[in-house]
Formats: sequence, C-alpha cells, structure tokens
Amino acid sequence: MTANQTGISTQAVLSMRSGGYYSERTYGAKQAIDKMLPVVQDALTPDPAASGILRVADFGAADGGTSRELWFKAFQALREGGDGREIAITYTDLPSNDFSTLFRTMQGLQGDEALAYQKQLDGVFVYGCGTGFHTQLFPSESLDFGFSATAMHYLSVKPCEISTHVHATGAEGAEADAFAEQARADWERILLARAAELKPGGRMVCLNFGIDEKGRYLGNTGGQHMFNMFDRFWKELRDEGKITPTEYERATFVQYYRTLEEFTAPLKDPSSPVAKAGLRLVDAFSTYTRCPYETRFSESGGSMTNAEFAKSLIPTMRSWSETVFLTALDGRPPAEAQALVDEFYQSYEDHVAVEPAGHAMDYIHIVVVMEKT
Amino acid sequence: MTANQTGISTQAVLSMRSGGYYSERTYGAKQAIDKMLPVVQDALTPDPAASGILRVADFGAADGGTSRELWFKAFQALREGGDGREIAITYTDLPSNDFSTLFRTMQGLQGDEALAYQKQLDGVFVYGCGTGFHTQLFPSESLDFGFSATAMHYLSVKPCEISTHVHATGAEGAEADAFAEQARADWERILLARAAELKPGGRMVCLNFGIDEKGRYLGNTGGQHMFNMFDRFWKELRDEGKITPTEYERATFVQYYRTLEEFTAPLKDPSSPVAKAGLRLVDAFSTYTRCPYETRFSESGGSMTNAEFAKSLIPTMRSWSETVFLTALDGRPPAEAQALVDEFYQSYEDHVAVEPAGHAMDYIHIVVVMEKT
Repeated sequence: MTANQTGISTQAVLSMRSGGYYSERTYGAKQAIDKMLPVVQDALTPDPAASGILRVADFGAADGGTSRELWFKAFQALREGGDGREIAITYTDLPSNDFSTLFRTMQGLQGDEALAYQKQLDGVFVYGCGTGFHTQLFPSESLDFGFSATAMHYLSVKPCEISTHVHATGAEGAEADAFAEQARADWERILLARAAELKPGGRMVCLNFGIDEKGRYLGNTGGQHMFNMFDRFWKELRDEGKITPTEYERATFVQYYRTLEEFTAPLKDPSSPVAKAGLRLVDAFSTYTRCPYETRFSESGGSMTNAEFAKSLIPTMRSWSETVFLTALDGRPPAEAQALVDEFYQSYEDHVAVEPAGHAMDYIHIVVVMEKT
Repeated sequence: MTANQTGISTQAVLSMRSGGYYSERTYGAKQAIDKMLPVVQDALTPDPAASGILRVADFGAADGGTSRELWFKAFQALREGGDGREIAITYTDLPSNDFSTLFRTMQGLQGDEALAYQKQLDGVFVYGCGTGFHTQLFPSESLDFGFSATAMHYLSVKPCEISTHVHATGAEGAEADAFAEQARADWERILLARAAELKPGGRMVCLNFGIDEKGRYLGNTGGQHMFNMFDRFWKELRDEGKITPTEYERATFVQYYRTLEEFTAPLKDPSSPVAKAGLRLVDAFSTYTRCPYETRFSESGGSMTNAEFAKSLIPTMRSWSETVFLTALDGRPPAEAQALVDEFYQSYEDHVAVEPAGHAMDYIHIVVVMEKT
C-alpha cells in the first residue's frame, strides 16, 4: 500500500543514495501522477465565492513524495483562482507508514522546500490516518475530494498461494478466480467506503496499476515480461533444489491488476451496492508511462553499457518485490535467505546484461474518476 | 512535547522491559490524566439530538498511551448517553513522534484491546497531525474540544543558557526573566492558535506541569528537590574538572513551569489579544499526584531496600532528562559522553540509596479549562 512506485520511503532511498538517484527511482511514478493534474483540477475548480473547509484525502499515500507536486499545484491554482477556503488534507496508509517523513516534507523541514505547500501556502492543514483504506476513514459525507495513486492493487488478504506463478497476472484456473474474486470484493468495499465519506458532488480520482485495453500492465508492454522473468528465475532456484517447492509457491504477490472493465463494473451497474450508495462513474481511461531506466539507456547513444543498464533496472524492481521473496523463505536463517534472494536478482540482472532488448518497467495505470451523487 | 510523563514512547518502554514495568513507568502521568474525566465529560456532554461531526484533538499527545483510557471513557459515555455523532479525533505532536504506535494501539493491533476505542466503538476516526502546537493546526472554528496533558511546559526555543542551574525553576535575574518572557509569548501563541481553531462554545482542557499555589512542582513537593539534585550532581562533575564550564551551562532544560497566575493572566485580562480572540477562562486549579515509586517504597513495609528504591526511582527521571545532559556534551565521543552521564545518574542513585527520605517525583499539574465565546 504505497503510492511510491519503488515501494520504499523517500527517507530510506535518500539515506541509501544521492538525491539524483532518488529522483530517478520515483520519476516514473511521479510522472504518472503529475499527468493527473487536469483531472484533479477539474474536481477542484477555484470558487472565490465558496465558504467552509475544503477537505481532501490522499489514500495509500506512503510518504507523500510522489504526489506532492500535484497537490502543490492544485492548491496553488485554488489560491490563484481566488479560492481562499481553508484546506484540510489527510494522507492515509497503514500504521507502519513513515508519517514522520511525510509531515516533515510538507512543512519544508526536509526535501524540496519549494513544494512544501503547508509552508508556502496559507491555510493548508496536513494530517495522517494510519488505518487501511478498505474501511471508512472519514466521517460520513465529510470529504470534498479523494485521490489515490498506485495503491489499490494490494489486496486485503492473500486468497491462496499461486502454485504455478508468482503473480496473479500469471495465475490459472481456480487460483486466478480466487484472486479475481478477492479483488472484486476488495474494490467493492473500497468504493462503498469512499461513497460513505464523500459529500454529494464530491469526486474521487483513482490512478492504479491495472491491465489496459491492449492487455498491457506494469513491466509487460510488448517487450520482455517482468513477472514472467521473476517467475522464471524463482523456478530456477526450485528446479536446482536451492529452494523447496513450498518456498516457490509462497512467493505469491498479494496483488491483483484489475482491468478497466473490472474497475468500472460496480460503478456502471445500477443494481450494484456501490451504485445504490450513490457513486457514479465520471471517466475511466488508461495511461502509459515509459520506464525511465530503459529511456535513459536508449537515449544514452551507446555510452551506457548493457551491464550498466541491467545494474540500474533490476534494483528498482527489487525495491518493491524483494519482501515477497524473502517472506517466502521464512524459517531459514536470515543470511541464507538473503543470499538466495541475492542470487535470484543477480540471475535476472545477468540475463538483462547479456540481452537487454525489451527489458523495461513501463507503467500502465488505469484512471477511474467517480462522483458521489 | 510528550504527553507521556516518562518522555519515551510506550513502544520503547515495552521493548525494554515487561508490561508491568511499562505500567509503572507511566502510572503517575496516567493517573493525573484519568482524574480529568469529569472535566472532559463536562465539555463533552451526550446530546442525543446533536447532529454533525464531533471534532476533538489531543495536543502534544506522544503515542496516545497515557490519555487512551480517558478518551475511551469519554467516547463511551457519549454513546451510552445516546449521542451517536461521528467522532474525529486528531493527535498532534512533532513530526518525529511515533504515530505508528499510536495508530496501532487505537485500532487494537497493539496493547490493551479493551481500550482500543476505534475498534470497540462505532463511528470513531483517528488521525495524526505532525506540526507543533504553537501554530494553528485546524481550520478556523472547526474544533469542538481540545485536550492537552503534560506538553506545554516545553518552550518553542531556548531563550538563553541558565548559568547557575539546569532548570528555569532555579534560574535567577535576567536569565529567569528571559525564560518567563519566552513562556509568556509561547503561551499567548498557543492560546491564540486554539482560539482560532475552536468553534464558539468549544472548550479546551490543559493539564500541564506548573507551579501550584504552595510553590510545589514536579519533584519538589516538600521533600528533596529533584532539579536541585540534578544541578548538584552536574555541578560536581564540573567542579571535579570532568566536564567544562560550558558543558555545565549547556545543560539547560528548554522548559518553563508556569504558575497558575501565569497560565490564567491572558485569559483574565479583557484587553489581552487572547481575550479579544474570544477565549475565556472557565476554571483553573492544581492537582497533586503522588510518586508511584515512592509510594511503592513507603508501602513495602521494609521489604524494599533503600538501594532497590533508588534503583527504581532514578531511571524514571533519567528517561525524560537524559537527552538534556547528553546534548550538553555534544562534541565529545558518544561513549565518553555516555560514561559521564552514567556517572551523573549513578551519583544521584547512590545519594538516594544512602538516605532515601524525601526523594520522590510527585507530580504537580495546573489544570486550565477555557472556552471559545
């Protein structure tokens, strides 16, 4: 449940590498979010005559880093449009989230002060909420606007292990059905919670990992298939006897990439509980954001070697996926588990270094805009 | 800025010792807070006919542990009184606060589940705010009730070093004046911020370390004087040449214990900015809470030795004061600084073990109840 594409906090990244490395690591996710500004501004039109408090939320926001510029620009546009309403923004995530970094960056105590909207703009108040977004997080009909980026592909529970693959995109039969059903039930709960929270006329914009109309999704946009690569090298460890069949199975991402149809179904069906709760579909579409690592490699004019590309690409995948593989090895001594996971990612990197063509982590997002009637 | 009397998070304590130890460490602070229930309930009277959202805040709340039972009982009384309003409670503290523990305990994911009001009661929503309470933290006239315990003796800045003592309670002349003036200015800022946030008719209850009508305050209630003991053993290190005169001076607590008169002055003076902002005094009084360590020793009937008492008392003082002495030694190798601070507390402990009479950390709180007109 992290809006940060890399799945690790800005603080962690900042402490690991230089600022430039951090910018690159979150560049793709941030680009995808920044593209949402017109959609957000469509919902947050300046109204110089409006009174009361504007209450907004960012669901599954992690440390708020990737969406900060979006919010800054949206709030700035309100002020420039003569809308002086006080703004209360609440960032939600799991209790373990790094709320301290979030609070510091919004106040300009850390990171780029120019984007610290709590400091730069008048009348903006920032809060955190450490409860998962599958339940109602705000009082009924109290929210003017909701936003969420790259968070809702995480399922509330793992419905089963996937015996033949690591990710639901590669699951088959009853296992695929179980994931689809869990995702359907979770999405319905998410929408019902938002329907309860939103004021009449309030909008919610969801930007989420999903499968587009061409069947594309994160790391699978026509070239090599990232999740198949994960599965291939994890299977290799099993087939070589280095991990057990159970350990192979347990590496199952608790994620589901919904199609645009799956995202919109409860909003389109007038008999659904979601429609009855008053939530209607405004718009839905997919977006494509090219992998910044592959772009840099392609545009390097040969000055970047294959090995350098592989060494830059794999860590970004590793940062958000490693925990799945480490958890699958629970019960082994930590050093032993770490060595196996190191070997796994090294195999992937070696493979890319030999033949880099088609390897990338392009982003596919499904955008869903909805409104409480 | 911590409501936790011991100045360390419950998580830190829990990881250090057993649950029983934790309970004892926060027992005094929690007792003082629990005594506030009638005052809180006076402000949060159940109203079965009321509509809208009840918005409350706990300022400088740390991990929320010491005030949790108070809030649980206050919310439970509302429900039992037929008041079904949805409740939004926001805990404020500095960005570095342990909001994760706070969110987990309120949801019943950690600690005593019976007091996890977010789980036990319907329609209660919990938030965090990581901005210091010297500025406005909530939209104007949006708060129904505010509470704060053992937080506002911390000053926003250190006005000067105290050259002849470690604490403002022992300061003299211009130094004492500088602390009093900083405390006055801070308290005015705090009250103006709360005046802006509270709805008309909304109340704020402040329970803070201060000096009572008998001149008593934390650790100085007629027996031995805790801050004088701190000063005595810190001076000893200086006089023995173990720390420099500058290091002696730098051990200055950024705290001020206001008298009841200082707390109430801006609320009583109709020409003050605070009174003009619409904040009026409802009630002010002092409370005394006996030191749980001294109580246990006194009631042990001789089964607890002097040394055991000293060994139990000093760590609770150390937990919230150590950072002041360590910071004063900035520039020394950490191990060297730690050894000096160890020696300092050991001197205090040895002193208590020889002659325990009168040593205690009794609590004195000044309670201020105010209302926005």
